[in-house]
Amino acid sequence: MLETATEFSIKDEDQLTMELIEAQYTLKDSRDRKNGKSLVILVSGIELAGKGEAVKQLREWVDARYLTVKADAPYLFRTQQAFWQPYARYIPAEGQILLIFGNWYSDLLLSATHVSQPMDEGMFDHYVQSMRAYEQDLKNNHCDVIKVWFDLSWKSLQKRLDAMDPSQQQWQKLHGLDWRNKKHYDSLQKLRQRFTDDWYVVDCEDETVRNQQFAQHVLHALKQLPRHKSTVRSKWQQAERPEQLIQPATEVFDKKEYKAELKKLTKKVAKALTTDNRNIVISFEGMDAAGKGGAIKRIVKHLDPRQYQIHTIAAPEKYELRRPYLWRFWNKLDNHGGISIFDRTWYGRVLVERIEGYANPVEWQRAYDEINRFEKNLSDNQTLLIKFWLAISPEEQALRFKSRQETPHKRFKITEEDWRNRKRWDDYLDAAADMLQRTDSSYAPWHVIATDDKYTARIEILRAILKQLKAA
Amino acid sequence: MLETATEFSIKDEDQLTMELIEAQYTLKDSRDRKNGKSLVILVSGIELAGKGEAVKQLREWVDARYLTVKADAPYLFRTQQAFWQPYARYIPAEGQILLIFGNWYSDLLLSATHVSQPMDEGMFDHYVQSMRAYEQDLKNNHCDVIKVWFDLSWKSLQKRLDAMDPSQQQWQKLHGLDWRNKKHYDSLQKLRQRFTDDWYVVDCEDETVRNQQFAQHVLHALKQLPRHKSTVRSKWQQAERPEQLIQPATEVFDKKEYKAELKKLTKKVAKALTTDNRNIVISFEGMDAAGKGGAIKRIVKHLDPRQYQIHTIAAPEKYELRRPYLWRFWNKLDNHGGISIFDRTWYGRVLVERIEGYANPVEWQRAYDEINRFEKNLSDNQTLLIKFWLAISPEEQALRFKSRQETPHKRFKITEEDWRNRKRWDDYLDAAADMLQRTDSSYAPWHVIATDDKYTARIEILRAILKQLKAA
Repeated sequence: MLETATEFSIKDEDQLTMELIEAQYTLKDSRDRKNGKSLVILVSGIELAGKGEAVKQLREWVDARYLTVKADAPYLFRTQQAFWQPYARYIPAEGQILLIFGNWYSDLLLSATHVSQPMDEGMFDHYVQSMRAYEQDLKNNHCDVIKVWFDLSWKSLQKRLDAMDPSQQQWQKLHGLDWRNKKHYDSLQKLRQRFTDDWYVVDCEDETVRNQQFAQHVLHALKQLPRHKSTVRSKWQQAERPEQLIQPATEVFDKKEYKAELKKLTKKVAKALTTDNRNIVISFEGMDAAGKGGAIKRIVKHLDPRQYQIHTIAAPEKYELRRPYLWRFWNKLDNHGGISIFDRTWYGRVLVERIEGYANPVEWQRAYDEINRFEKNLSDNQTLLIKFWLAISPEEQALRFKSRQETPHKRFKITEEDWRNRKRWDDYLDAAADMLQRTDSSYAPWHVIATDDKYTARIEILRAILKQLKAA
Repeated sequence: MLETATEFSIKDEDQLTMELIEAQYTLKDSRDRKNGKSLVILVSGIELAGKGEAVKQLREWVDARYLTVKADAPYLFRTQQAFWQPYARYIPAEGQILLIFGNWYSDLLLSATHVSQPMDEGMFDHYVQSMRAYEQDLKNNHCDVIKVWFDLSWKSLQKRLDAMDPSQQQWQKLHGLDWRNKKHYDSLQKLRQRFTDDWYVVDCEDETVRNQQFAQHVLHALKQLPRHKSTVRSKWQQAERPEQLIQPATEVFDKKEYKAELKKLTKKVAKALTTDNRNIVISFEGMDAAGKGGAIKRIVKHLDPRQYQIHTIAAPEKYELRRPYLWRFWNKLDNHGGISIFDRTWYGRVLVERIEGYANPVEWQRAYDEINRFEKNLSDNQTLLIKFWLAISPEEQALRFKSRQETPHKRFKITEEDWRNRKRWDDYLDAAADMLQRTDSSYAPWHVIATDDKYTARIEILRAILKQLKAA
C-alpha cells in the first residue's frame, strides 16, 4: 500500500480535481460492464487529525453528487450481530462510491477499549482477520475497499487540544476517549497497529499534505478498474454423488402413526423455536416438487405468523445484481431476530447460477468459501443455521409434476422452468454433491432428507430441527 | 365496504384456494402494466380474536411465497417521526402483497392509551384523517390498502381468557392492556370505532366464519385491478409566470463585500444548523447551471461531513418506479435526523416528469396535494423544510454553459440533457409557476432566488436559511 507514499508530491489543484472527476466518471460508467466496480472508503484515525476536513476537501474536488458519505455513531459489538450487519445495507452498487466514517474498525476499537467488557488480543486479532476476509469477499464481488488512517503525533494532538475552546473538548466527537492521557493515546496507537498494515496512513501534521495525500489515495483507487476473471486454470474436483442423492430412501410411514407423530412434533418444534433466544435460520434447497412448501407449512403449524418470516428467493433484481451476490441475504438478515425461513437460499450461487451459467466458474468456485465465512459469522453471533436438502427420485418427481398439473389449485406450482430443470437432473446432482461436500460445517450442517415418502420426510425434518436446537 | 358481508357464505376450501391463487397471480402479472397494483393489508383487532390464526390460514390457502407478513412491536408516536415513517420502507412493489400486523392504527391506539401522555379526541381524529389521506395517496399510486378489524365480544373474550393457561396471560401479546377490565375493553372499542368506518370488521366468534370472511375480503381486494386514469376532464388552470421567474433580478454584489459577508454568514449558518434540534431538510430546484452545487458548497462550508447528507436526485430506478413516486424520498428521510440537503427533489414529479410526460396529467395534477401532505406530515413532526427555486435568465445560462464547456474540470457538468432542457425553457417556467402557486405553504415556503449574479444568490440563500431557522 505504501508505494504511492514514496512517490507523493503536491499536485496542482485544478489538475487533481480534473483527474478525480475523470476517474469518478470512469467508475460510474463501469456499471453493468465487465470491469464494473464500486468503491468503499473506510476512514478512521486520531481525534483532531482532520478526517472531517480532508473529506470535506475531497468532496469539493470531486463531483460530490456521486460520493455518498455515511457517518453513524459507532456500534458496540453485540452478541447477536456480525460486525458487518449494521453496514451491509449500504454497500454501494457498481459505479457508486461510499465513504464510511464510523466503520467496523471504529466499532472494534470502541468495543476493545470498552471498560465493562475488555477484549483480549486473541479475540481482537480474530476480528481483524474476519474483517479482512469480509473485505476480500467484497473486492472479489466488484466492491473495492480502501482504508485510510489519519494519524497525528502525541505532541501535535496536545497542541491542537490546547488551541481548542475548552467548552468544546467535552464534545461527543472526542469519542469517549481521554486524549489528554498519554497512556490512552499509546494504547490506542498500539491497538490500531494490529490492523493498519494494509491501510493508507496519512500524516496529518500539515493540512495541505493531509488533504492531498488522502485525495491522491482515493484517486489511485478509483483508477484501478479490475479485470474480473471468468476462467479458472485448474480442473474442478467434482465430488462424487452420494447414494442418498441418487437413490433417496423410500421407506413409507404409516398414515395413522404419521398423524399422531406429526401432531406431537409440530407442537414440540413450535415450543423449542419460540423459547430459543438465538436467531434461527431454517433454509431449504432441493429438487423441484421435493416438498419444501409442505415442510415449511408443518414447521410453522403452531407458530404465530408474527413470530417468523418466510423469504422466498427468486431471481435477483437488477439493483441486486449490481452488488455482491450475498448482499440481498445480508439485508434479509440485517436486524431480523426471531425465526427466518428460506425457501431457496444463497446456495443458488452454486446451484442454479452455476448450472445456468449466471455465475462464471471463478465466481461459483469461490462462493463455497464465501458462504462458509458468511455462515460462520452468523453462527459466531448467536444465529443457529439449520439447512435442508430435499432429495427426490426422478420417478417420484414426475408423478408429482403430473399430479400438480391435474389438480386445479396446484397447477400454479408447475412452470416451464420446472421441466427445464428436470432435464438437467444430473447437473443438479453434481452441484448438490459439491455443495454438500464443501459447505457441511460443524456450525451449519446439512440435513439431506429423502422425500419420496412425504410423511417420512416431514417427520424427519421436524426431528432434525428439534435435534439441532437441543444440541447447540 | 360492508357490501360483501351481506353476501357472505362459506365457500368450498378447494374453490376458495383456487380463486385466491388465481387472483394472486393476476396481481403478480399486473406488474409494469397499465393496471398494475400492489396490496397492503392492515390487520388489527381485539386480543384473542384470532388474527394470527386467520392469517396463518390465509397463508395456507394462498401461494405463501408471494405474501409477505410484517409484524413489528408497536411504535409509540415520537415527535420526530411521522406515523408512516417506520413502515415506508416496506411499502410493496407492484405485484406484491404485504400484510402488516402492527400498523399505524395499532400505534395510534397504543399512543392514545399510553398513560403518561394521553391523547385528546381532536388529536386522535386528526391522526385518523392524516392516515386516511396517506392511504388514499397510496391507492392513487397503485398501492391498494385494505383494513381488517378482528372483533370479539366482551363475553367471548372473557371465556377465551378463562380457557388460557394463566401463566400465558402475562405474555407480551396481551399488549399491555388489561383485557379483564370491562372499562378498558369498552374504551378501546369506543376508540377504534372512531376509525373503523372504512374497515372490514370480521366477527370472530366462530373460527371458520372468521377465516373465511377474512380470506374472502382479501380475495375481493385482490380481484379489483384498477384502471389508472391518465386523462383529466377539466382544463388545467395554468398559473401566470411571476416576473421573478421571467426576468430574475441582476443586482451585482461587490466582490470584496461578498467575501466578508460570505465568511460571516457561512459560520452563522453552520452554527444555527448544528444547534437546532429539529430535522432540517434544505432542498434545491431550479434551471440547469443556476448554481445549486455552488450554493450547497457554501452551506456545508463549516459543517463536519458527518453532520449532513447530500441527496442527489436522478431518474428513478426500475424498482423505485414500481412504488409510489414519493417512496424513494420517504426512504431517504425514514430515520435521518440531522441535516439533509437535496440537489433536486420530489418536485421532479411536477417539473421534469410533467414536462417529459413521465407522469400523465392525472398524476402530476394530483401530485401538488400529495406533496403538500407529505411536507405537512414532516413539518408536524419537527422537520423544518427550506425550499429554494434558483431562477436564471436564459442569457446568463447560455454564458455558463459555454464557460463550462471551455473549462476542463467543469466540462462534466454539461450534458446533452442540459441543451434539451434549455429548449423547453417556457415549459419549465410554466411548471415552476404552477409549483410555486400550489405548494408555497406556511410550513414549507418557497424561496425564489435570482442567480444571474452568483454572489447575490449565495448571500441570499444563506440569509434565507438563517431567517427560516430563527422564525420557526
